[in-house]
Amino acid sequence: MGKTTAKGSLNSSFQNRHIGPRSEDVVEMLRVVGVPTLDAMIDKAIPFDIRSNDWFSDGSRSEEDVLVELRKMASKNQIKKSLIGMGYHDTITPPVILRNMLENPGWYTAYTPYQPEISQGRLEALLNFQQAVCDLTGMELANASLLDEATAGAEAMSMIRRICKHRANCFFVDHECFPQTIAVIRTRANALGIGVKVGNPLTDLDPEKVFGVLLQYPGLGGAIKDFSATVKNIHQAGGLVAAAADPLSLVLITPPGEWGADIVLGSTQRFGVPLGFGGPHAAYFATREKYKRFMPGRIIGVSIDQHGNKALRMALQTREQHIRREKATSNVCTAQVLLANMAGMFALWHGPVGLANIANRVLQLTSMLANGLSKLGFTVCNKNWFDTLVVETPSANDVHIRAAASDFNLRRIDKNHIGLSLNETTTSDDVIDLLGIISGNLNHGCDTDFLEKNEKTGIPKTLLRSSKILQHPVFNAFHSETGMMRYLRRLEDKDLALNRAMIPLGSCTMKLNAAIEMMPITWPEFSRIHPFAPSEQTKGYRELIDRLEKQLCDITGFFAVSLQPNAGSQGEYSALLAILAYHRDRGEKNRNVCLIPSSAHGTNPASAVMANMKVVIVECDSFGNVDVADLKEKAHLHADDLAALMVTYPSTHGVFEKAIKEICEVVHENGGLVFMDGANLQAMVCLCKPGEFGPDAMHMNLHKTFCIPHGGGGPGVGPIGVVERLAPYLPNHPLVYEAGPETGIGAISAAPWGSAGIFPISWTYIELMGTKGLRKASQIAILSANYIARRLERDGGFNILFKGESGLVAHECIIDTRDLHKVSHISVNDISKRLMDYGFHAPTMSWPVMHTLMVEPTESEPKEELDRFIEAMILIRKEIMKVDSEEWPLSDNPLVNAPHTANMVVSDSWSHPYSREVAAFPVKGLVENKYWPAVGRVDNEYGDKNLVCTCPATDAYITHVKTAAE
Amino acid sequence: MGKTTAKGSLNSSFQNRHIGPRSEDVVEMLRVVGVPTLDAMIDKAIPFDIRSNDWFSDGSRSEEDVLVELRKMASKNQIKKSLIGMGYHDTITPPVILRNMLENPGWYTAYTPYQPEISQGRLEALLNFQQAVCDLTGMELANASLLDEATAGAEAMSMIRRICKHRANCFFVDHECFPQTIAVIRTRANALGIGVKVGNPLTDLDPEKVFGVLLQYPGLGGAIKDFSATVKNIHQAGGLVAAAADPLSLVLITPPGEWGADIVLGSTQRFGVPLGFGGPHAAYFATREKYKRFMPGRIIGVSIDQHGNKALRMALQTREQHIRREKATSNVCTAQVLLANMAGMFALWHGPVGLANIANRVLQLTSMLANGLSKLGFTVCNKNWFDTLVVETPSANDVHIRAAASDFNLRRIDKNHIGLSLNETTTSDDVIDLLGIISGNLNHGCDTDFLEKNEKTGIPKTLLRSSKILQHPVFNAFHSETGMMRYLRRLEDKDLALNRAMIPLGSCTMKLNAAIEMMPITWPEFSRIHPFAPSEQTKGYRELIDRLEKQLCDITGFFAVSLQPNAGSQGEYSALLAILAYHRDRGEKNRNVCLIPSSAHGTNPASAVMANMKVVIVECDSFGNVDVADLKEKAHLHADDLAALMVTYPSTHGVFEKAIKEICEVVHENGGLVFMDGANLQAMVCLCKPGEFGPDAMHMNLHKTFCIPHGGGGPGVGPIGVVERLAPYLPNHPLVYEAGPETGIGAISAAPWGSAGIFPISWTYIELMGTKGLRKASQIAILSANYIARRLERDGGFNILFKGESGLVAHECIIDTRDLHKVSHISVNDISKRLMDYGFHAPTMSWPVMHTLMVEPTESEPKEELDRFIEAMILIRKEIMKVDSEEWPLSDNPLVNAPHTANMVVSDSWSHPYSREVAAFPVKGLVENKYWPAVGRVDNEYGDKNLVCTCPATDAYITHVKTAAE
Repeated sequence: MGKTTAKGSLNSSFQNRHIGPRSEDVVEMLRVVGVPTLDAMIDKAIPFDIRSNDWFSDGSRSEEDVLVELRKMASKNQIKKSLIGMGYHDTITPPVILRNMLENPGWYTAYTPYQPEISQGRLEALLNFQQAVCDLTGMELANASLLDEATAGAEAMSMIRRICKHRANCFFVDHECFPQTIAVIRTRANALGIGVKVGNPLTDLDPEKVFGVLLQYPGLGGAIKDFSATVKNIHQAGGLVAAAADPLSLVLITPPGEWGADIVLGSTQRFGVPLGFGGPHAAYFATREKYKRFMPGRIIGVSIDQHGNKALRMALQTREQHIRREKATSNVCTAQVLLANMAGMFALWHGPVGLANIANRVLQLTSMLANGLSKLGFTVCNKNWFDTLVVETPSANDVHIRAAASDFNLRRIDKNHIGLSLNETTTSDDVIDLLGIISGNLNHGCDTDFLEKNEKTGIPKTLLRSSKILQHPVFNAFHSETGMMRYLRRLEDKDLALNRAMIPLGSCTMKLNAAIEMMPITWPEFSRIHPFAPSEQTKGYRELIDRLEKQLCDITGFFAVSLQPNAGSQGEYSALLAILAYHRDRGEKNRNVCLIPSSAHGTNPASAVMANMKVVIVECDSFGNVDVADLKEKAHLHADDLAALMVTYPSTHGVFEKAIKEICEVVHENGGLVFMDGANLQAMVCLCKPGEFGPDAMHMNLHKTFCIPHGGGGPGVGPIGVVERLAPYLPNHPLVYEAGPETGIGAISAAPWGSAGIFPISWTYIELMGTKGLRKASQIAILSANYIARRLERDGGFNILFKGESGLVAHECIIDTRDLHKVSHISVNDISKRLMDYGFHAPTMSWPVMHTLMVEPTESEPKEELDRFIEAMILIRKEIMKVDSEEWPLSDNPLVNAPHTANMVVSDSWSHPYSREVAAFPVKGLVENKYWPAVGRVDNEYGDKNLVCTCPATDAYITHVKTAAE
Repeated sequence: MGKTTAKGSLNSSFQNRHIGPRSEDVVEMLRVVGVPTLDAMIDKAIPFDIRSNDWFSDGSRSEEDVLVELRKMASKNQIKKSLIGMGYHDTITPPVILRNMLENPGWYTAYTPYQPEISQGRLEALLNFQQAVCDLTGMELANASLLDEATAGAEAMSMIRRICKHRANCFFVDHECFPQTIAVIRTRANALGIGVKVGNPLTDLDPEKVFGVLLQYPGLGGAIKDFSATVKNIHQAGGLVAAAADPLSLVLITPPGEWGADIVLGSTQRFGVPLGFGGPHAAYFATREKYKRFMPGRIIGVSIDQHGNKALRMALQTREQHIRREKATSNVCTAQVLLANMAGMFALWHGPVGLANIANRVLQLTSMLANGLSKLGFTVCNKNWFDTLVVETPSANDVHIRAAASDFNLRRIDKNHIGLSLNETTTSDDVIDLLGIISGNLNHGCDTDFLEKNEKTGIPKTLLRSSKILQHPVFNAFHSETGMMRYLRRLEDKDLALNRAMIPLGSCTMKLNAAIEMMPITWPEFSRIHPFAPSEQTKGYRELIDRLEKQLCDITGFFAVSLQPNAGSQGEYSALLAILAYHRDRGEKNRNVCLIPSSAHGTNPASAVMANMKVVIVECDSFGNVDVADLKEKAHLHADDLAALMVTYPSTHGVFEKAIKEICEVVHENGGLVFMDGANLQAMVCLCKPGEFGPDAMHMNLHKTFCIPHGGGGPGVGPIGVVERLAPYLPNHPLVYEAGPETGIGAISAAPWGSAGIFPISWTYIELMGTKGLRKASQIAILSANYIARRLERDGGFNILFKGESGLVAHECIIDTRDLHKVSHISVNDISKRLMDYGFHAPTMSWPVMHTLMVEPTESEPKEELDRFIEAMILIRKEIMKVDSEEWPLSDNPLVNAPHTANMVVSDSWSHPYSREVAAFPVKGLVENKYWPAVGRVDNEYGDKNLVCTCPATDAYITHVKTAAE
């Protein structure tokens, strides 16, 4: 409980707040597990030869202390009016959304909506997002967001390649695309051997020589071009067209869907999502119905539940990379749910009229600026515009100096051109100021009245939008703050997030996201910084980034870290590219075999395929461990072209394999490097340093191990750590040279440091915990998993599938329910759904082994919650016995009928062989704290057969029916 | 939907966000009410002779714009290490409490828990608070908080006076009491003619000459005295003893309850509640069981519900002022619930061990400082201490200058003494710095090790606490952040607050508390400012205060405003004192008759009694209006000693009385002044200026009309506006001369400007709305009330009790259910409880007329919500008809059994003549959005007979029972 001494920090107990079990609980848990101390447990669980004891800082720090330092760092970032544009625009996050969504654990601590019955709130929010995207783009189908616009562009390329596989192997990219988009596409294309041609699509494009095209609309330089002929030509030649489009401009200009684009994508950042120095933001991605099975990412769709009521869920999950493995064409396995939801809510809050007001104001101010510039004798290079102008000037440098003096950031182009993009926060006073800045003459004589009168139109008449947007009632129902606040609460209430119960997901590490860690991310000094702002304005961020990199290097033992990958999948992909580049630089271009154990997560082979590697599967033994003999054989066999092994540690089976050092040595001996999948880093923090016991590279999930919340399915951050020889091959960025080595593999994400806006979370966590706290967290995480495993075995009669030689698991355990499935015909799905009636999110189902449940409790869960889960599992086991004994028929029992909604148990007709109380309150404690699933068991097949991925025509949103009497 | 012009503000639509009904809704509502336009409606509803059209600012401002200005103001406040003490100490609000309680609308938008079935969450939190207070003070009974320590001191005086009514009419106040406490007590005592003697209780006190004593423990100067002999002497003489005690010190020193005090009170601010320039904070107040019926304020107690389960509710409500009226001895009718809950959660979060750690650290640092000072040759005036030292110095001024240079604020005493009080945020480095500051020698040579070694004990051995605190499981169960976050969510979930449904309380104006209004109050620049910090550090606050005063003057038409009263009751009391002072200064000391209409709120006569006025009741006519003939008669009759009329406008019956101007004239003609109760100001904002049509003073409820949230039953802010002749008699403050006129009536609240910490809310609201927005809000509030009234009449067959001559009501309407009561024997209580099943908080019940419901929808409620309420009322009416027709027996129907808990409708046994669906889902929309009351109907009598006001011995808090198998 902290020290009483007056020395040192104020309240050195953050680690005791972060860690769930109290010291007396730990004693009891150790007793159950049968080990005398935490250290003894770790000695048994983790092979001695990979342990480490050499760490950066010993003590933890007080919350107050760290907050003060964070405020100091924040104050080194300068908030300017950034008109740099290039896909990033200042925006006003509606306070009602900021407070009730972004700052609300009910939204930010939720998990990916794999279990739809307890996720209807965020599924509805995502459906709204998809509807808004379809409306804005004029497309038929949108996904629930991608990582960023650049990645979405690369995904478009891959998708078109897959559809048009027999065409010339070259992708044409509009030279008006944002440079970061071009860079990420080049990185991807290079890896796959796809040619990239950058040029003017109206003049440089030979449709016969490409399989597809990516256009920018409006372009980097602000112009809005008519691409309809381009589309026609490409289509005639058999290729497809993608368009990266600014969503706010689409309110006013003809959407790409109406001029024939096959894919439309872009960033929804300016829909109320803070700049955050580059991310996280939600990219959107929309296509035609006919290409739905090629679309990357997650799609939310409408289906029905077992009672025939409308119910939402993720559609077409069989497309997902974890199922397609090495046949996958994309490794994206997450979305930016929290940010997509914010953007969707922004559309809903403003509605069609409000969005038109904002877009019109931006357009009008841009036109005023253009008029003023003409009047003052300046040449605006683009003949039409929405929000962006490129202006000729005798000395761009002078303009930038004057701009800086007036707290503006403009886009740097060259000596004689500057660019600027206006946004939602720009005022007419700003326009007057900008005229002074550009002309160098404060008394330029243009006033608002004059500028308004002499208005040019920015949008070509032929490209003025005539179709309507956001006509669905949901976008027109909650325009008062009271209505919006309640809608947000209503949706939140449908979901079971970490603020209500444990989410015991194997390998997804749903731990506490402490309030103090979340606070800084909405400070304006962190949230309102443009990613391409001059470095002297972003010293706070740069310090934070340096220090976070150092923390991660020290924790993992790696030589260098890149924070750029904004998801775990992107991290592992970057690491593979770095390994390939290393081999290539050593003249071993042929090395392209990637060994992957059969137990690996599906993203591993998907990433390897994206890196154009040849996947060779290594067998696992019956304990779930890598079969070292098989590994040796295959490493030998491929010794000449062995590039890498991808290995997860502790294994996806939740075990510290004893042979890990040997495994790494085998690979090294055969000329390969080792990539460690850091999904389970959680179990090793401050116990072992992966960078020292063999692996050459590893990705880390800051959204798992280092407390970034899951946000309902994103954001994620997936940095990579590498040993010294790989450091020259880390990702870099075309616009910000400090973001990576010149010799690097190119850009992986749109922003130089990926999702920098949420780095304060991980930095704060690590700083608060210190080495001792982090080590303790790892120990307790392992203890909790072993406690659950032992209790379920001892008291529940469950079998735990894999253990280490010591009889211990790592930080997660796999409950084997295959027998129940075989004997009782109760499926793992039934158990999972029944857990909802007990108030729990289901563990990971049927992964990595079919018909099992993988449970990871994390260190943050109080012992009471672990016990509550254990109790639920024991009682469910007893319920299954009643099915076995035919007390309940297999077709009608609380398991197969789960989850039970309030509507169901209150129904006038109840004909089940068990009582309503058994259905809804199987444990007494639930009376005090009952979570009601919003819908009954969801019918996935129905929804996939009848795919609807936009808001259904229904008045369900306007909950309260008009009165009978009215 | 805002303008599309680029001119002016960014997004001028805040008023459209604040106001619920959309423009098309307004058209429809006007149609139903039968008036063509809003203006026409107002012309009909409000007498022409009191209308005004002259307002300060026309336009509204954008959220962005106002936020920027607020940040500017905030930056003019300087955050220093304030060691001024005097009842205010810097503290660390645990982030988990800050985010999940103070910044969470689920907590801050709740109403006073009059309806216990939908308030179990905050009732439990308050019970925890009371338990913590009882434990800390060693008393048997605590209330749910009072306004501030000074008010609590004054309430203690009044309470003792009531108990010891036959003793000498003098109250003895320890000269070591805080000056603001002494000042507020003097104000109160002066009004009542009670003598106050201030002196040293150990030397100056003659027990025979006083009825009671207030001690300070530890004293202002830091000393901890043994008062046991004093107590014995007073008790022997028949008087009682109250002690104002610092709650953190009580962790370590013998609590007053153990040395015999009869009342213990104090501020719980330092339990995690931000300084906020003086408030709002929760005072605590505890006494002995035997005095329970004399205790002021609200008490939470344990009772049972209709099913025999534990259920909490406000106990002993018959004590409440609104029932006792002119027999009341206190006018306090609210608490500081939100702040009390924060303080209670602070105790719960730290638990007994954590609180002891904090208290010990403060003590140890203070001892180190004392040691260092001795070593350096300084005299510490107090021989013992907890956190406070008074130090002799050759030049206090030099010390203060050095302190300021090092960002410390010390207490100013005189030329040769300085004071300082350490707190939770103080570090040992601070102690080293302070030694340098006081000695003027940075190289003073005392280091931490030295200071720790030479440790004096600050607490006299005889006063070291031996008894335990916070042994109840609830204080030891949620010490991990995960546990705490979930506990807060679980409690919040039990309550129905404004973030889920309309709270249509007559005259309580539960309107939107917009997120943007709430944001600034937790900015450190507003939250961490000591109320007695030097004025140059508080320029931001002073600007805010000036501007808010100006806004309120302009809105009301009064000449001057005092923001000091921190509740409506305190406002009206202050105004009466000002009126009496005015008469006295004119030589008309005899004027002490206060006319009060029979319809007045109970606080009016209670305040008049506290001002020592003679209450004379004026009759009302059958329309609920003041009977002008009776008024004239009584004004005439008392013309010689008429002091004031207290009148609510629009009336408590929800009507704009036509005669209001005449009423004021009658009073003026007879030498009296008019106090207007501003409870219903909501209906007049920017439509009429009360300061111009007759009243001489009015209080305003910033927590009603101007958007300060109710916080579950406090904070409130009750400023008063007065005409010019009363301006010299506004409240002032002994320590801050700018807080009021020198000729003022003295202090009403502890802090110079009362609850300044929440002023940003009202300022922001007024600034965002502008005149037009405020006027529109008033119009829509009136429209909504009339719409409900008309629909309930037309479609529901309800009778609306009072209307103006035009047939319109003001901003609220009274539904007459007396017939239902008589004919169907369904009570207004049954209807209210049944409304909970429909997801509503009940309207105001049986006030101002028995067996009626008063409904005030406010402008913020969307029309859909109004319609949902109307539908519920219509359906309830139909349900009553089924009782009439004997389809359902009177003893068993959905009304008398309401509210229905989930547990009840899911129960295996259901024998009611109506279905479970009718019970729980009487309207289809509820399936999408059901609120479940946490308990069944609460038995108030049971609880009052078996009074338990501390946490019951139960494991209900540790929700999840140990597993059967464990």
